[in-house]
Amino acid sequence: MARAAPRPPEDDMARRQADEPAGLRARFGPDEPLVLDAGVALSPFQIAYQTYGRLNAEKSNAVLVCHALTGDQHVASDNPVTGKPGWWEIMIGPGKPIDTDRYFVICSNVLGGCMGTTGPASADPATGEAYGLTLPLITIPDMVRAQAMLVKRLGIDTLFCVLGGSMGGMQVLQWAAEYKDMVFSALPIATSAKHSAQNIAFHEVGRQAIMADPQWRGGRYLVEGARPSAGLAVARMAAHITYLSDMALHRKFGRRFQDRDAPTFSFDADFQVESYLRYQGEAFVERFDANSYLYVTRAMDYFDIAADHGGSLAKAFAGTKTRFCIVSFTSDWLFPTADSRQVVHALNAAGASVSFAEIASDKGHDAFLLDEPELFAITRGFLDAAARARGLAGPAG
Amino acid sequence: MARAAPRPPEDDMARRQADEPAGLRARFGPDEPLVLDAGVALSPFQIAYQTYGRLNAEKSNAVLVCHALTGDQHVASDNPVTGKPGWWEIMIGPGKPIDTDRYFVICSNVLGGCMGTTGPASADPATGEAYGLTLPLITIPDMVRAQAMLVKRLGIDTLFCVLGGSMGGMQVLQWAAEYKDMVFSALPIATSAKHSAQNIAFHEVGRQAIMADPQWRGGRYLVEGARPSAGLAVARMAAHITYLSDMALHRKFGRRFQDRDAPTFSFDADFQVESYLRYQGEAFVERFDANSYLYVTRAMDYFDIAADHGGSLAKAFAGTKTRFCIVSFTSDWLFPTADSRQVVHALNAAGASVSFAEIASDKGHDAFLLDEPELFAITRGFLDAAARARGLAGPAG
Repeated sequence: MARAAPRPPEDDMARRQADEPAGLRARFGPDEPLVLDAGVALSPFQIAYQTYGRLNAEKSNAVLVCHALTGDQHVASDNPVTGKPGWWEIMIGPGKPIDTDRYFVICSNVLGGCMGTTGPASADPATGEAYGLTLPLITIPDMVRAQAMLVKRLGIDTLFCVLGGSMGGMQVLQWAAEYKDMVFSALPIATSAKHSAQNIAFHEVGRQAIMADPQWRGGRYLVEGARPSAGLAVARMAAHITYLSDMALHRKFGRRFQDRDAPTFSFDADFQVESYLRYQGEAFVERFDANSYLYVTRAMDYFDIAADHGGSLAKAFAGTKTRFCIVSFTSDWLFPTADSRQVVHALNAAGASVSFAEIASDKGHDAFLLDEPELFAITRGFLDAAARARGLAGPAG
Repeated sequence: MARAAPRPPEDDMARRQADEPAGLRARFGPDEPLVLDAGVALSPFQIAYQTYGRLNAEKSNAVLVCHALTGDQHVASDNPVTGKPGWWEIMIGPGKPIDTDRYFVICSNVLGGCMGTTGPASADPATGEAYGLTLPLITIPDMVRAQAMLVKRLGIDTLFCVLGGSMGGMQVLQWAAEYKDMVFSALPIATSAKHSAQNIAFHEVGRQAIMADPQWRGGRYLVEGARPSAGLAVARMAAHITYLSDMALHRKFGRRFQDRDAPTFSFDADFQVESYLRYQGEAFVERFDANSYLYVTRAMDYFDIAADHGGSLAKAFAGTKTRFCIVSFTSDWLFPTADSRQVVHALNAAGASVSFAEIASDKGHDAFLLDEPELFAITRGFLDAAARARGLAGPAG
């Protein structure tokens, strides 16, 4: 398929529109369609992204951060929708483990998302109405293909590092398998090379909760002026439990009652953990599109790198020269360490350079987003060593 | 409160009504109110139950089986609603671990349930309409108090054994704490003396799914001719995942597709695990009342024996002469072995006779309902030894 010459990011920066959340947009027109795994071409489409730090003259210091299921491109600066800090500001910024004085950080909203990149809430150019379920299904490889088009558009031939946790880690693995020459180093965190039956099951519960909401309207809620908020909130609540460990919930809430010492003998949010979950559900529907939730969970369910390579994960990584660091957390039961070990074994079988760390934490899957000094030290150390190997300059100053 | 003289079970057998599922009913009139933990008296009310085997002349061979969240009294014979075998026929019957040639087995539907015992779907005598949410909240101690009234009605002073798994095990522990003289032996399986924050969280998701369904109608769906089936199905799906282990789901379904080898790129039930879950949800709404689900999950959430005894679980069991056997399963993450160990430690501190077995199984919480030879052997052996101590005759024949 025809590919336009790379254009500098300034082109896109100039295209910011007042009617969209602040940020950068890369638009791909009829001359640059994206052929999806579902077998159809998506065109036109756009990718919303943010950048932090400066791309050096050699274009050798670009770090691509891949976000998780409900994340977005606002990784290290205020989110214009929620007004909250970026979702990984603890990790990314001047002097932080991913040091923006040193690296040029790119983070783009995934295909199928709802923060500016083309997704089911975007207008279908053929009708002018929101796609809804008429958007073809999206896969993790599709998301990565779109990111690769963005990276090329930015004039970058090789990413210094691709990293991310959870679904972000799936994208990292897909990058490493599919674009071997474009990935100098890769840091997949709390992730897996395929989604497990249990994880598919939890996602299916969330989807059924959304689709059971009459306000979902067969996916046409945006066109019909409705919102399946109740169903989406239930989906979020169920998922949120899986992000935390039993121990984290025990420590945070235990069996403590809300506002009093005894039960109310009602179905009010008696326990603090109930109140917390309800809040999580309510806050989520303010910032996320229900159909995007269907699309992105489905993408994770379909993810299975080995299946795409004749059943062999090692084959997927054959010939790789990427430097890998794999990280898992002891209390993560959504993407348990065993999943990471499978990736490590496959990389070893492929002769890759790989280090592996299982971090002791009782915070569950969400540990990758939280204050985990060992994760910060590992990330900083891995990037430092890769930078030396890449011949990058040391920290600025 | 006044108590009527015990009547033989035949009295109730005569009262079977054609408009209710086949089975026994014990009715408690205005002279026998049940004072609930919520602070109000429930009267009149009824308990639906089944019996298997024969009560001996000494009335010393009665075994009370307590059912789990969505179980019922049809433990060892066909269920008249579903047409399926009793839920624990693998365990209970002639020559089986709980040998009905030897023991008189009683199983009653819990208070708040929907299989004949008074619950939110029962008619409020004051209005003639289904209670819905006007029924006071029910606790596990309330359920056990109602069972104790049934046992006394049957003329039984001491139960040879009280046993059950999951919420059934909670009732066993409550029996042992509250009716020390009535319980010769107790076998709580895969259970806990208090519900964890994670378990409360999962229950809250289920309740929110039901209450989010517009057909729930604020709990008045029966009066208004509606049914919150979609919400109840989602609740069941979410809960069902917690009954199985990650490994059991992997072994049963893995990532296998339904009916074909490749994804459909749709939101159909592509994976076998999705189809299975949807079926579980659909089948459940055919047999269970949504408000009962709210009430019974709430009862489990409130359960905390230690809290009812000044914060000390050992104090709850002080002075007990009951013989205990505690059983857990290695892959049960809903009621993990740590929960059982806490009970064992408290019983030891109370000077009780207690044995403990953690059974190696990868089937998850539901292992207690499945073909687990070690569970059968432990149950048979524990009952045999207790029978000798009780001076019961050996197996018939």
